[in-house]
Amino acid sequence: MTMQPDTTTSTTTTNAVEWLTHARTLFEPAMRAAVGRLDPFLGQVASYHFGWCEPDGTPADGGAGKALRPGLALLVAKAIGGDRAVEAAVPGAAAVELVHNFTLVHDDIIDRDRERRHRPTVWSVWDDTTAILAGDAMLSLAHEILAEAGPHADPAAAALAVATREVIRGQALDVAFERRDDVSLAECLGMEADKTGALLAVSASLGAIFAGAPQSTVAACHTFGAELGIAFQIVDDLLGIWGSPAVTGKPVFADLAAAKKTVLVAWSIERGGDAGADLATWFASRRARSEVSHEELEHAADLIEKAGGREWATTAADTHVANALAALDGIGLDDTAHQTLIDLAHFVTERKL
Amino acid sequence: MTMQPDTTTSTTTTNAVEWLTHARTLFEPAMRAAVGRLDPFLGQVASYHFGWCEPDGTPADGGAGKALRPGLALLVAKAIGGDRAVEAAVPGAAAVELVHNFTLVHDDIIDRDRERRHRPTVWSVWDDTTAILAGDAMLSLAHEILAEAGPHADPAAAALAVATREVIRGQALDVAFERRDDVSLAECLGMEADKTGALLAVSASLGAIFAGAPQSTVAACHTFGAELGIAFQIVDDLLGIWGSPAVTGKPVFADLAAAKKTVLVAWSIERGGDAGADLATWFASRRARSEVSHEELEHAADLIEKAGGREWATTAADTHVANALAALDGIGLDDTAHQTLIDLAHFVTERKL
Repeated sequence: MTMQPDTTTSTTTTNAVEWLTHARTLFEPAMRAAVGRLDPFLGQVASYHFGWCEPDGTPADGGAGKALRPGLALLVAKAIGGDRAVEAAVPGAAAVELVHNFTLVHDDIIDRDRERRHRPTVWSVWDDTTAILAGDAMLSLAHEILAEAGPHADPAAAALAVATREVIRGQALDVAFERRDDVSLAECLGMEADKTGALLAVSASLGAIFAGAPQSTVAACHTFGAELGIAFQIVDDLLGIWGSPAVTGKPVFADLAAAKKTVLVAWSIERGGDAGADLATWFASRRARSEVSHEELEHAADLIEKAGGREWATTAADTHVANALAALDGIGLDDTAHQTLIDLAHFVTERKL
Repeated sequence: MTMQPDTTTSTTTTNAVEWLTHARTLFEPAMRAAVGRLDPFLGQVASYHFGWCEPDGTPADGGAGKALRPGLALLVAKAIGGDRAVEAAVPGAAAVELVHNFTLVHDDIIDRDRERRHRPTVWSVWDDTTAILAGDAMLSLAHEILAEAGPHADPAAAALAVATREVIRGQALDVAFERRDDVSLAECLGMEADKTGALLAVSASLGAIFAGAPQSTVAACHTFGAELGIAFQIVDDLLGIWGSPAVTGKPVFADLAAAKKTVLVAWSIERGGDAGADLATWFASRRARSEVSHEELEHAADLIEKAGGREWATTAADTHVANALAALDGIGLDDTAHQTLIDLAHFVTERKL
């Protein structure tokens, strides 16, 4: 499978963006109602994180993110059961977005990231205590609204809790890997599947569960989300090195400057011959120093390219998108919604290099 | 209501301790199975927190706490529906103990407490990252096992999530109050009801829910737990000032040394006349300094006593225990289990001064 030609990408983007914009009008009221249950202080902190207000509570509009996960949940529901299923799936969509954002608020503490969606992170506006409690509240709220979501609440809550456990495991591994020099490609792929694949997988599953789909369809949707998540993460790793700063909001070679061991790096070291060995040496020496010149980062990026890592990742992303789309074949989806799912898959794995 | 005479307290203690010991054999296997689902690292961290192993994984036995909440859940189930209900309630008991311990692991980071149950806290053995992720994993696990708990899973999960939201609100208020000089008695009582009352209330509710009790019985059990929780917290506040170091494991006047604004302090300042005004002055000057002599702490404790705070708290604790017990009247509990519930209420509000 190759990249979509420009004209297709255009339509793809239009359909996908239109759906995500529409989906937000469906699930955001449920999220605002959920956040409204919190005490005034943590409610304001959560509202700030979601881009609904400034730190002092002044209403704001922006920085809310793509809301890919709830959009995916609702689109799968539509593809299986039409508008009635979309309505039933709203609590699931809101719950998965709450869980995703719980992980972001806690990850930002752990990674000491000061900025997210071009705004200061919760811990950097307030403090660690506030960010810990706000994240905790979001995770708990997700289960509170699911428990009220009618006949599909149990399997939905079970699926979301399992995915949450996988995301937490992925984050724990990510932190552990930063301290290790010998992280294998398999370990790295597993960690990324946990960190990014698990929540996209359960987003799609929740759409199917709330649409009342049989177990085989739920499983197919889970595979779609999981494969899409892996492709999404690989593209993110490519962008982390070669992405245009105008698109990513980060400097070029950002992941190399941060000495991040992505699958690109792990593959290049493990399978990249002499260039891979040179990259391993570069990483080992990199850890001990704090500042690296642009030329050195460029050199490391070249080593990944020479090792074949960039080409492997590009092909791997396409393969995982193809796997994702194949999982949807033959489960009897609505044609229009199915096409939008295909468009969404291409949209979120576009490589804006 | 007055303190139980010594002989009654003896029997009370025996019955209550016997039940808690027995209850542990019922819910702990479910907790170990739940923790066994975690990745090896976070599983080991959680096992350490629960007293099952040393930080390096060597098996250990101890420091697991009283396990009051799961014991209460199972005892309420027994009082309503006998041994079959106890069996059904095991996931609820394990879930509430997981949630309680999630709050402890995160609170210890927030309060920078280095010791819990005579062992180093998770963040002090590992780091904040590990404690954040281990706490997150426990909260998520609680909902994972509840979602698999059969026909009562939904109301149980909803009740537990609401209680969790209240506990988080209480913790946020507790932190906010430390920075304020004007915390009213009503605010303080509300905060303590959230922090301690909410989880004891839901523990009792969960027992009733899993026993298949009607809504009125669930509500009565909720009141029992909530009132017991308030009494428990007031007694804890009394012990925090006048408790015997041999019993509490803390120095005498510990809460005063930490400048903790408990309900005892709030009541004394608001209703304690001249002595209360002197106490307010003492607290205002206390905040600015770091070290306080034993004589000064003794003086502050005397002011609380003169203000009538100690007497009020002693009476208030008895009143809340009486309210708790009154809530159980007429809901048709099994006589023996009902008596053990009464014993448990007295046991957890004993004042070992």
